[in-house]
Amino acid sequence: MSNEYKFFEDFKIEESYMTAGRTITETDIVMHAMHSGDFMPHHIDEEFAKSQPIKHRIAHGNLTFVFSTGLIFQTAGMNPNVMNYGYGKIRYPGIVYIGDTIKTEVKVVDKKDAKQPTHGVLTQTETTTNQRGETVCYVEHMLYVTKRNPKA
Amino acid sequence: MSNEYKFFEDFKIEESYMTAGRTITETDIVMHAMHSGDFMPHHIDEEFAKSQPIKHRIAHGNLTFVFSTGLIFQTAGMNPNVMNYGYGKIRYPGIVYIGDTIKTEVKVVDKKDAKQPTHGVLTQTETTTNQRGETVCYVEHMLYVTKRNPKA
Amino acid sequence: MSNEYKFFEDFKIEESYMTAGRTITETDIVMHAMHSGDFMPHHIDEEFAKSQPIKHRIAHGNLTFVFSTGLIFQTAGMNPNVMNYGYGKIRYPGIVYIGDTIKTEVKVVDKKDAKQPTHGVLTQTETTTNQRGETVCYVEHMLYVTKRNPKA
Amino acid sequence: MSNEYKFFEDFKIEESYMTAGRTITETDIVMHAMHSGDFMPHHIDEEFAKSQPIKHRIAHGNLTFVFSTGLIFQTAGMNPNVMNYGYGKIRYPGIVYIGDTIKTEVKVVDKKDAKQPTHGVLTQTETTTNQRGETVCYVEHMLYVTKRNPKA
Amino acid sequence: MSNEYKFFEDFKIEESYMTAGRTITETDIVMHAMHSGDFMPHHIDEEFAKSQPIKHRIAHGNLTFVFSTGLIFQTAGMNPNVMNYGYGKIRYPGIVYIGDTIKTEVKVVDKKDAKQPTHGVLTQTETTTNQRGETVCYVEHMLYVTKRNPKA
Amino acid sequence: MSNEYKFFEDFKIEESYMTAGRTITETDIVMHAMHSGDFMPHHIDEEFAKSQPIKHRIAHGNLTFVFSTGLIFQTAGMNPNVMNYGYGKIRYPGIVYIGDTIKTEVKVVDKKDAKQPTHGVLTQTETTTNQRGETVCYVEHMLYVTKRNPKA
Repeated sequence: MSNEYKFFEDFKIEESYMTAGRTITETDIVMHAMHSGDFMPHHIDEEFAKSQPIKHRIAHGNLTFVFSTGLIFQTAGMNPNVMNYGYGKIRYPGIVYIGDTIKTEVKVVDKKDAKQPTHGVLTQTETTTNQRGETVCYVEHMLYVTKRNPKA
Repeated sequence: MSNEYKFFEDFKIEESYMTAGRTITETDIVMHAMHSGDFMPHHIDEEFAKSQPIKHRIAHGNLTFVFSTGLIFQTAGMNPNVMNYGYGKIRYPGIVYIGDTIKTEVKVVDKKDAKQPTHGVLTQTETTTNQRGETVCYVEHMLYVTKRNPKA
Repeated sequence: MSNEYKFFEDFKIEESYMTAGRTITETDIVMHAMHSGDFMPHHIDEEFAKSQPIKHRIAHGNLTFVFSTGLIFQTAGMNPNVMNYGYGKIRYPGIVYIGDTIKTEVKVVDKKDAKQPTHGVLTQTETTTNQRGETVCYVEHMLYVTKRNPKA
Repeated sequence: MSNEYKFFEDFKIEESYMTAGRTITETDIVMHAMHSGDFMPHHIDEEFAKSQPIKHRIAHGNLTFVFSTGLIFQTAGMNPNVMNYGYGKIRYPGIVYIGDTIKTEVKVVDKKDAKQPTHGVLTQTETTTNQRGETVCYVEHMLYVTKRNPKA
Repeated sequence: MSNEYKFFEDFKIEESYMTAGRTITETDIVMHAMHSGDFMPHHIDEEFAKSQPIKHRIAHGNLTFVFSTGLIFQTAGMNPNVMNYGYGKIRYPGIVYIGDTIKTEVKVVDKKDAKQPTHGVLTQTETTTNQRGETVCYVEHMLYVTKRNPKA
Repeated sequence: MSNEYKFFEDFKIEESYMTAGRTITETDIVMHAMHSGDFMPHHIDEEFAKSQPIKHRIAHGNLTFVFSTGLIFQTAGMNPNVMNYGYGKIRYPGIVYIGDTIKTEVKVVDKKDAKQPTHGVLTQTETTTNQRGETVCYVEHMLYVTKRNPKA
């Protein structure tokens, strides 16, 4: 509700916050297959799943990733000074089953000048864990952020 | 329709293919906001969008990314020898507007042994372009692939 | 299928009907969160829900309300003589859990002249109950209805 | 991101805030018909709509209402001290067309003791306007709020 | 709203009714591709469509067909004496474009005894036309209907 | 990935293939009711279903049918030489319950000349079975296919 949007200078290395949680439902997995067009049998074919080592339908890795972006939006809100630059790394070290509940911790880990003197590039890790505290998605997210006081 | 799934040895550096296309609709953007929970005004608030340099609502970068995964599935199908290892890099060098049509070129760019002798790690670039040939999403995708003949 | 739409004069105080039923699924709750943008943890975070007195994810009150409007449409159909004027009162005296089945009883409780002599304002209660007969949503709905014979 | 949730005593009469905006799309109307089951021709039949005074398909009034609940959630977040008690009044004084952008102003207008000494009942108006500042939905929302210091 | 459901004897050859209308939106086509998994480029790739004789993305034939089933439900309601036996013929003599409005005429064309003396098989044509009166979907629908008075 | 699309001459009587599988979820049934507008209580009202011989909510027959079209697309891909001519017969000999997994076998059963010398009409059966091998949907699908060498 604040109008005081943060600028590049206002972000501090190591600052962090935790989002709210979201339970991954069968609906979410069906919806992700539908939305993306990725109907891999690991996600939508229970008979196939039973024949594999994991034995259950599981969430798409990218479902977990895009849900983390929504959880972050709902906690951090919009900041017009920040643009999505891209991702440096995405890993899926754990499996998300139907019924698991995820939440995401965001931590600033790097800041450096951008090519343009008006902006900086901020890197934050976005670590999504399940209800047992196991990491299921790890992201290095790069943001292009306006400086309050560009260097002359 | 073939049962001859490729193993790690069968992938060749520089081999590539192009997916079919998909037009990004207003529906897709609304659905991505709904599915992910990311209701950033850049995507769903036309009045905000008009006040910004781009002037229009645009697709979420991650919408383009997840759509590319569906296009790849629909072209390449499922291969039980292949697991998603993660992403080394994601960039969004171009903007996707409502009505743009995207397709994705997949190219094998790297192969190396995995820690386990039974598997290799394959890196493929997934380059999504719009109808004018401009790159709008660039991904380095790492796959964990079973070897046909693990080294003794 | 009839073309004989009712006018204001045709509605009688105390006349009533019951709609068909609809089972509230996890899908409906996820869809309501997605559609409305209301991702309150009471509805989508099982871990949060378990920490609260109710112990389970529950349906949004407004989900029950909007579902009652669909059930009414499917029973009563469309009447071009009737416009939605608004609601005088909405209460949620009971909780709707995943798997509950709701239906709605509609009863005319008040009729009065509108400011315009061509129309009347009709109030109907829309009482939604679950499969145990417990009221879970109570609405006073005001309709603006064309008169067959406007007073001179 | 704060853990300092407001209690009943912390809300002040006349305090207010404005949510972010959301553009109402054809997708949202189709989705509302699908979700609720209310396929009234005013919303989904362009030929019927052309035969009526308004001439265009329009949003369900309740679509605007439920979207306002999502906009409020995205601005105000979750407060475990607050429960939805119901609505005292809902009015739809204006029409929402495809392409209109809505936002909601929330203002505290009344506070009174509840039957239970541990809680109070707070009434806030939720006034949704379009991009021209015209009110399209007006709601009196009653909330059941925990007191920090219940009277002995 | 009536409890007097029709039995086999009550249906008369040549009896017919017309449903309400529904406008086919881009949303519906995207949703049909998502729901069915049929992402044929004729429906979702505008660049492909422009290269074909028809020049535009068009609705899936089966989208029109399943929408006609919904329109029929909304007009005729549920009858527990009637079961879906199957379809004798489906044809798509016309193309449905985004923005077209369809409605369906249902006509009883045949009645015959079923193998079981308790039931009859009724055939009704379901003819869906667009706003210009052109037939876009023609269906011969067979229903298995309980008799009021089974022959001894 | 091949550019060598089949022509009419290339299809052989008795040639066949099997699609991948898809598990029918509660989500799919709710989505089919929403998408089609067919909210028959057999599919969405658990209390009604319990009162009927089958005792459970079941999938719409047409849900199974449209899912088979998606499964076929995902296996066979797009062929610009093939157009949907219609269906000669659809039957639903078995019931699909929530949690069942379906797949479809496609077999060419007939080929004949079309009125236009440039095309032929091919009939293929599309037989959808559940995880126990029981047929739940049987379709005779007619395709209008371009000839490589039209007869002079």
